[in-house]
Amino acid sequence: MKVGYLGPYGSFTSIVANYFEKADIKLKDYTSIAKCLKAVESGEVHAAVVPIENSIEGTVNTTLDYMYHYLNQSVVCEIVLPINQQLMVHPNFKNNWQLCNKIYSHPQALAQTQLFLEEHLNHAVQIMTESTTEAAEIIANHSDIPIAAIASVEAAETFGLSIVSRDIQDFQENQTRFWVIGTELVKPSMLQKHVSKQSFGIQMTDNRPGNLHRILSVFSWREIDLSKIESRPLRTKLGDYYFLIDVIHDNNQLMQNALEELTILGAQIRDFGKYPVYIAPIV
Amino acid sequence: MKVGYLGPYGSFTSIVANYFEKADIKLKDYTSIAKCLKAVESGEVHAAVVPIENSIEGTVNTTLDYMYHYLNQSVVCEIVLPINQQLMVHPNFKNNWQLCNKIYSHPQALAQTQLFLEEHLNHAVQIMTESTTEAAEIIANHSDIPIAAIASVEAAETFGLSIVSRDIQDFQENQTRFWVIGTELVKPSMLQKHVSKQSFGIQMTDNRPGNLHRILSVFSWREIDLSKIESRPLRTKLGDYYFLIDVIHDNNQLMQNALEELTILGAQIRDFGKYPVYIAPIV
Repeated sequence: MKVGYLGPYGSFTSIVANYFEKADIKLKDYTSIAKCLKAVESGEVHAAVVPIENSIEGTVNTTLDYMYHYLNQSVVCEIVLPINQQLMVHPNFKNNWQLCNKIYSHPQALAQTQLFLEEHLNHAVQIMTESTTEAAEIIANHSDIPIAAIASVEAAETFGLSIVSRDIQDFQENQTRFWVIGTELVKPSMLQKHVSKQSFGIQMTDNRPGNLHRILSVFSWREIDLSKIESRPLRTKLGDYYFLIDVIHDNNQLMQNALEELTILGAQIRDFGKYPVYIAPIV
Repeated sequence: MKVGYLGPYGSFTSIVANYFEKADIKLKDYTSIAKCLKAVESGEVHAAVVPIENSIEGTVNTTLDYMYHYLNQSVVCEIVLPINQQLMVHPNFKNNWQLCNKIYSHPQALAQTQLFLEEHLNHAVQIMTESTTEAAEIIANHSDIPIAAIASVEAAETFGLSIVSRDIQDFQENQTRFWVIGTELVKPSMLQKHVSKQSFGIQMTDNRPGNLHRILSVFSWREIDLSKIESRPLRTKLGDYYFLIDVIHDNNQLMQNALEELTILGAQIRDFGKYPVYIAPIV
């Protein structure tokens, strides 16, 4: 069996993917979320591990939109990973890292460390890379110029870089949710189930005032608690949205009734499935 | 008077900023949304022009979060700009642009053209730049290698590039909303007011089930139509959100009552102001 993930090796997604590596499961990395999800749709892999939300930066739109518009797969499980960001340089610049005039990292990691960068490296240009691993690799390949990367402890170790400032994310409780998407029921090793969750996308057939209020009423009077609601553009015109709803529940019949009622009210529902949520130790 | 905008010159934001250029108003470009908004907070400029939402990619989180968490300014007006994306190469590669192995552009422009790129340039690596203008400039500076940029017609003209595929955005109705943020009442030249809108951020003091339903009820029974609602992470922990709400209305007393009632229910409201919306001609 094969599990794909948003690579390269050393990325935060690869840390999550490692929980699925077993004797009979091989991992395969992809260079983009779209390519990774396409691989699971085509059957090239049996499941795909991709980020879906960060506590600072919010939803990863690429994952959600691709899932809603193009995929026929379900969410198999969710892993929550607490994330610490590290500032790293080539060992040659360990003692004068403040000279760095370029900071490389993935846009999400740059966004998670804006306050730190403003205070300590305000003069430096921020350069976006495809992944935090790629950023670390660039630093490793340039021993003669003062540049820095923001990436994981693993990436620093892999490329022999010096961490010069630890845990530099702007808010200490920095977590990212990852979805494992596919049809095969894969389970992470060593992690305990936390709760059960169900996610779905909802789109109303007509764009009437109060649509969202009607959707929420269906859940509210049944006392079904929504853990998240998010609007995303339908890509038709400004002002047309679909809604992503996350529900933590254990009453399948009540949820079934709610979804049936929504359909009667004219909603198109894309059920992403009911799945267990696991919490990983901090990295 | 000075108006700041997300530069550089040739970017889609600069096209919007041009509507404010007058004898007594000077424009000033900034390299990031945060820097542009900080300039208006410090008084360096009197107003700032920044993107807030695209019809395909959704809300520009940097603008919304910065506005909610750090700014004391209001929205002065909104400009909606229909956007067409162009594929351009150095004139030397005009007739064999299919050879291009690297495509440079801003992440939003790349996201808006994914279907096109997959169909026509699937083998090419996509490289993110700070702006579409920067992408065009890179192409102009490399006359000897087959690389391409996605940017505006203006950018192609500025840098003398050849447009080899026109209007390549995945959905034809591609529009971006821009906010003009500040304290001075600046008005765009040549554009007619379309509607009046009011925007605010809402955060409930306690994280109770049904909070969002309560918020929406306040508007629903008054038949106040919300043109948009969006949840954004509060940056404290996963699952804590604030809500951005847009309302198109002309009844100030009714809105005033609704906002007062929300406050009684325990909501903290950050009013972004009531402002006119203008629609610009296609670019």
